[in-house]
Amino acid sequence: MMMDDDMENGSLGPFQDRPRTFPNMRSKSYVPLIFRVLMGINARVLFVLFLLGFGVIFYIGTSTSPIIVFVFSVCIITFVFAMYLSKWVLANDEGPPEMAQISDAIRDGAEGFFRTQYGTISKMACLLALLIFSIYLFRSTTPQQESSGIGRATSAYITVAAFLLGALCSGMAGYVGMWVSVRANVRVSSAARRSAREALQVAVRAGGFSAIVVVGMAVIGIAILYSTFYVWLGVDSPGSMKVTDLPLLLVGYGFGASFVALFAQLGGGIYTKAADVGADLVGKLEQGIPEDDPRNPAVIADLVGDNVGDCAARGADLFESIAAEIISAMILGGTMAQRCKIEDPSGFILFPLVVHSFDLVISSVGILSIRSTRDSSVKVPMEDPMAILQKGYSVTIVLAVLTFGVSTRWLLYTEQAPSAWLNFALCGLVGIITAYVFVWITKYYTDYKHEPVRTLALASSTGHGTNIIAGVSLGLESTALPVLVISVSIVSAYWLGQTSGLVDETGNPTGGLFGTAVATMGMLSTAAYVLTMDMFGPIADNAGGIVEMSQQPESVREITDVLDAVGNTTKATTKGFAIGSAALASFLLFSAYMDEVAAFAHEPFKQVDIAVPEVFIGGLLGSMLIFLFSAWACSAVGRTAQEVVKEVRRQFIERPGIMEYKVKPDYGRCVAIVASASLREMIKPGALAIISPIVLGFLFRILGYYSGHPLLGAKVVAAMLMFATVSGILMALFLNTAGGAWDNAKKFIETGALGGKGSDTHKAAVTGDTVGDPFKDTAGPSIHVLIKMLATITLVMAPIFL
Amino acid sequence: MMMDDDMENGSLGPFQDRPRTFPNMRSKSYVPLIFRVLMGINARVLFVLFLLGFGVIFYIGTSTSPIIVFVFSVCIITFVFAMYLSKWVLANDEGPPEMAQISDAIRDGAEGFFRTQYGTISKMACLLALLIFSIYLFRSTTPQQESSGIGRATSAYITVAAFLLGALCSGMAGYVGMWVSVRANVRVSSAARRSAREALQVAVRAGGFSAIVVVGMAVIGIAILYSTFYVWLGVDSPGSMKVTDLPLLLVGYGFGASFVALFAQLGGGIYTKAADVGADLVGKLEQGIPEDDPRNPAVIADLVGDNVGDCAARGADLFESIAAEIISAMILGGTMAQRCKIEDPSGFILFPLVVHSFDLVISSVGILSIRSTRDSSVKVPMEDPMAILQKGYSVTIVLAVLTFGVSTRWLLYTEQAPSAWLNFALCGLVGIITAYVFVWITKYYTDYKHEPVRTLALASSTGHGTNIIAGVSLGLESTALPVLVISVSIVSAYWLGQTSGLVDETGNPTGGLFGTAVATMGMLSTAAYVLTMDMFGPIADNAGGIVEMSQQPESVREITDVLDAVGNTTKATTKGFAIGSAALASFLLFSAYMDEVAAFAHEPFKQVDIAVPEVFIGGLLGSMLIFLFSAWACSAVGRTAQEVVKEVRRQFIERPGIMEYKVKPDYGRCVAIVASASLREMIKPGALAIISPIVLGFLFRILGYYSGHPLLGAKVVAAMLMFATVSGILMALFLNTAGGAWDNAKKFIETGALGGKGSDTHKAAVTGDTVGDPFKDTAGPSIHVLIKMLATITLVMAPIFL
Repeated sequence: MMMDDDMENGSLGPFQDRPRTFPNMRSKSYVPLIFRVLMGINARVLFVLFLLGFGVIFYIGTSTSPIIVFVFSVCIITFVFAMYLSKWVLANDEGPPEMAQISDAIRDGAEGFFRTQYGTISKMACLLALLIFSIYLFRSTTPQQESSGIGRATSAYITVAAFLLGALCSGMAGYVGMWVSVRANVRVSSAARRSAREALQVAVRAGGFSAIVVVGMAVIGIAILYSTFYVWLGVDSPGSMKVTDLPLLLVGYGFGASFVALFAQLGGGIYTKAADVGADLVGKLEQGIPEDDPRNPAVIADLVGDNVGDCAARGADLFESIAAEIISAMILGGTMAQRCKIEDPSGFILFPLVVHSFDLVISSVGILSIRSTRDSSVKVPMEDPMAILQKGYSVTIVLAVLTFGVSTRWLLYTEQAPSAWLNFALCGLVGIITAYVFVWITKYYTDYKHEPVRTLALASSTGHGTNIIAGVSLGLESTALPVLVISVSIVSAYWLGQTSGLVDETGNPTGGLFGTAVATMGMLSTAAYVLTMDMFGPIADNAGGIVEMSQQPESVREITDVLDAVGNTTKATTKGFAIGSAALASFLLFSAYMDEVAAFAHEPFKQVDIAVPEVFIGGLLGSMLIFLFSAWACSAVGRTAQEVVKEVRRQFIERPGIMEYKVKPDYGRCVAIVASASLREMIKPGALAIISPIVLGFLFRILGYYSGHPLLGAKVVAAMLMFATVSGILMALFLNTAGGAWDNAKKFIETGALGGKGSDTHKAAVTGDTVGDPFKDTAGPSIHVLIKMLATITLVMAPIFL
Repeated sequence: MMMDDDMENGSLGPFQDRPRTFPNMRSKSYVPLIFRVLMGINARVLFVLFLLGFGVIFYIGTSTSPIIVFVFSVCIITFVFAMYLSKWVLANDEGPPEMAQISDAIRDGAEGFFRTQYGTISKMACLLALLIFSIYLFRSTTPQQESSGIGRATSAYITVAAFLLGALCSGMAGYVGMWVSVRANVRVSSAARRSAREALQVAVRAGGFSAIVVVGMAVIGIAILYSTFYVWLGVDSPGSMKVTDLPLLLVGYGFGASFVALFAQLGGGIYTKAADVGADLVGKLEQGIPEDDPRNPAVIADLVGDNVGDCAARGADLFESIAAEIISAMILGGTMAQRCKIEDPSGFILFPLVVHSFDLVISSVGILSIRSTRDSSVKVPMEDPMAILQKGYSVTIVLAVLTFGVSTRWLLYTEQAPSAWLNFALCGLVGIITAYVFVWITKYYTDYKHEPVRTLALASSTGHGTNIIAGVSLGLESTALPVLVISVSIVSAYWLGQTSGLVDETGNPTGGLFGTAVATMGMLSTAAYVLTMDMFGPIADNAGGIVEMSQQPESVREITDVLDAVGNTTKATTKGFAIGSAALASFLLFSAYMDEVAAFAHEPFKQVDIAVPEVFIGGLLGSMLIFLFSAWACSAVGRTAQEVVKEVRRQFIERPGIMEYKVKPDYGRCVAIVASASLREMIKPGALAIISPIVLGFLFRILGYYSGHPLLGAKVVAAMLMFATVSGILMALFLNTAGGAWDNAKKFIETGALGGKGSDTHKAAVTGDTVGDPFKDTAGPSIHVLIKMLATITLVMAPIFL
């Protein structure tokens, strides 16, 4: 990653040559300390240092497994490719000075918020690290740990180190996502002046850059941790740890990642939607000025929100999804390999890393397959950008099926069950098909080409009330099909795993759970490409804002509008992915938790008896946690939006010149209000998520101690986790789909249907859209992060409940 | 119960003496066949027949247990008291002819809908009875049944008879609720012309009548079934059934009751809210005429809806709640008594019947404590009706605590654990306190005296969108406290039960689950009074409608408005009760299900392992069922309301004379539209609820058979049941509270706050109210019936899953 310094000095000409006197908005770029230190060093020294670092890592990798070397190599190659992508994107022009100026203001706001937000998050992370450390210093050790000579202190260091590294990487993933988007947006705007195809290419490559960095970082981070622990602990040498127990030490990494992702998503989500709702309510409805109009005092806050909410938060989120899924699959692979007494278990353990290495390669191919004609003088007729993206996706999917087969044959072939790899390859196929069907269902419920959104639009014609009733019903109904699909795919992947021929010592088939893990990997085997399509959306959205604010001709705005609409659809589908994979990952982590508890309790822990009142209560509280969390996330947006509404109304009243472009609106005030409010508001739901499992487990542990129920705390937490996962999946599906459908019902009416823009039907649809905003961009995407955080927190904090 | 025939011939004078030419609306009273047959018989013969019937019942009761005789006596005495109440209510005058005329139209519509609705329901019930019969003919029998000589045919007859009796009684409970409300409404309107206190008394006594009949019927129905089976099967004689196994035979009664209640609630709920939303959207918002204006073509449909939705459906619903709770507690009491080898277990088994007998007595006292001054010439200053009702409630609560103590000492005293009865009395106290706290929480979240509703009202000032966001957040948040309260009360009642000193053969304490059952009974120990307060609401609401339609002076309308507002609060609190008791009853029925499965499978069935993928899927599908059911219930209202809107708009356009009172609106069309639509729309969600557990269990039974998992079907259904219960509780709390809060936020603004009636803030609040209608009166109250129906259906249908 590099900071392109001369980018910061965009031309500072007059705001625009129309009759306005807004003074310049100048940005001072913010570069995190670590980058500044790196950039202060002489480039050659840096290069040597890098080489040295990689040498060490490679050396460790070689001592671990050739598979790790393969993973390292692929990651480094794709990082180089990512650098090429970023160079390519930055080489595009920034357009006229007024564009660059607006882009500077956006970057300014985004980086400022990022700084304060991650400052807060990192303080909390350090506190939590201290807590974890002290808990692990006093925890009891498992027989395995004792036999392998890992003391309390070692295990404490390991967990805390993994946690902090996970948190750091997750934060960096967020930063990378934002870093590229605040630079790419203006270049997309500029390219849109020439051709749609070129704009699409710039946006896709920018999205591709951060997608590859995010996925690559998740993979290489886990690979480094794994091989470092391997070498450090002398794994597999006599008297020390077995390699099959190693993945459990990585759980801290997942917890750190989801911890940061949760707060990033909450803070960013509140920021972006509060600014959006606030700007719309006064600007669009009261003053009647269009979206992204420069006269709206909240417009810069809104545009900043796209970057911190969609780009930064989504980067951290996907990073966390992939990390959680890799770690849980590694744990399961290890457990299964041990149970089946497979001679070389490393194939089963490292399989997820290889799958994602291939993911990086094939997604790069997919990204490259989207090409511009580059000849801006020849205006070719515009192709549907969705079709272009879909074409790239098809290329990636085909490659994914092929490489998945290769990986299973390479790593999961064992002489004990010669055809097992084929079953697991089919599991992967189940996952890939599930992903495809998920995308289709999401599109069916949120695209206005289909029945549901049209019915919703029709319900708007009888008023605000019927619109909301119809939208809520639609969202609730839309949970059914995805749940059925998940159910079928879990059962079939489990069955494929069970019949793979892998048996434990007593001859029972044991591959079922690993089968579902492989299906999850199949689902995420094109993660980098999916993330690319997702990141593309907010960049296009921002580009549209810059185009509007710099008052470009209508034709340019049309191009960015089309790209924006495509971005909405791809965004909705990514959420479907994230939920599906969260469901499966939580289920896998749940099994890991059961194993962990059994190990610590020195007794089998196989069943959670929901007929016991305390356990039932645990479930009830777990589901309630989801409801309360959603409530707080939504109301945070509502409250902050009300603050924005008041500030914007005040500015319009106190500075009547704004409407005639005579007075510059005070963008900074709105940015400051939204930033401070979202920092404040993200704490409550986030703290709830972290504290409640710990308190619940500890409380019932004590209660169990006094009422003579051993393991009561662990059981209650297990029930809480399961019920929270189930309710969370449903709630997230409901919120995301309802939000998306409302948004598109409004868009459908804006195409001229049912009275078109400005009609009463349209007003009712706008209400639905406003309600959908916190649903789909704040609460919804936070919930699936929450689910995984609960799964990892229970694993890391298990010693408290026992 | 009697039909007051001369009531039907209300004076048929001109509609009103204002310049209107609406022709008369004449009703032809509908009396069900059974009543007509009874009334055709000579009164003395009837009396002798009744005496004979009671003689037989008493004879059977005497052969069973003196406790049953006590229960019979109390029920019959309170039925006589109920007859007195109805005579008293009917003795009040019907007011001027225009009132009677409107009341006739309402009665007409309500009885017509009731006839067709219950016609459909009874056909479905007969089909289901056939299905149950054929399943039981092919089921395997348990060792207990074999040893007691109950063959397949006997068990099939028993189950089907119980099912049909439950369905019949539930239907009659609904009919009674509606029968009295369509007669009392006009008498309340008339009394409101004299004094508020008198109107209150008429409404309360009318509500009291149906409450006592509903509760009494649940108690006596179960008592008759119990004693008939007892005598028929020769229970406790050597070689036949043990008395502790008897309660399980009653499950069919609970299933029948909840089956009818579910469809009654769905059909009635869709009817009332579709008419309400439709009438408001055109009448209030488009034409600007007030609520219940005679010019609105949907006004009669709206008023009919109050009777079929709130009175009939709530009667069936509460009947079902009490039946389910009694049966589940009886099953648990029997199981525990058997396990503890208590010499005379009948006390433990019949305890719930006695509690509800006392409930009838003390509630009668509570109802009588609300007295009118009756001297209509002296106008005393109006007292707050809520305070009067609360005073009556306090009287009832105090008596409940006392009688609960008496019942526990009488029935639960056993020499094995001399202080056990005291622990159980404390469990009852826990239940009573829980009920009280529940009422308080509901009021906190839905009353505009408190913070939440005021914040919601404030959010309306920034638009429709922020109002909806705030309402949804409020509803989601309001789930937290009730869940915490339920959790604490389950744990403490369980703990009190465990420490009661009752131990099984191996010396383990076993009273825990029975403790929670006793707490549930404590919660419902004032059910009849609570139902009285609930029934009072829609009667007052209807009275208000009649006052408005017959254009009485403003002062009269003020009185009914106050009563209506009180009714809204009491309605919300009853829902809280119903949910709390549904949660506990389902949990108890779940235990009964586990026992039943164990008995049939001839192996212990103690744990449901949610770490098994299929079981996890069962849970996922169970939660999804709740979401889908809510979606369909809400969208049914939305769709039907849209039909009403179109019809009302059409009438206003085609008959412009309506607005000048020159042309009579066609009330009948709206009634017909709403009636046929709600009959159609109730089928889909209802069928979903019945079919899905059966299909799921059967499917996984087959899957389990082929994959070598015994009991897989039973386990999956168990998980489905548990997850559906938990999600259902939360969803119902969310929907009910959000709906109530929106309604009251609107009312708060109508008191003049934040701009008052007609302001933009008010319009936003009306939107919220419209959205809340299907939430709180259709989907919300159907869900808790659904939960219990799922619990009973799994018990009855268990043979399919095994």
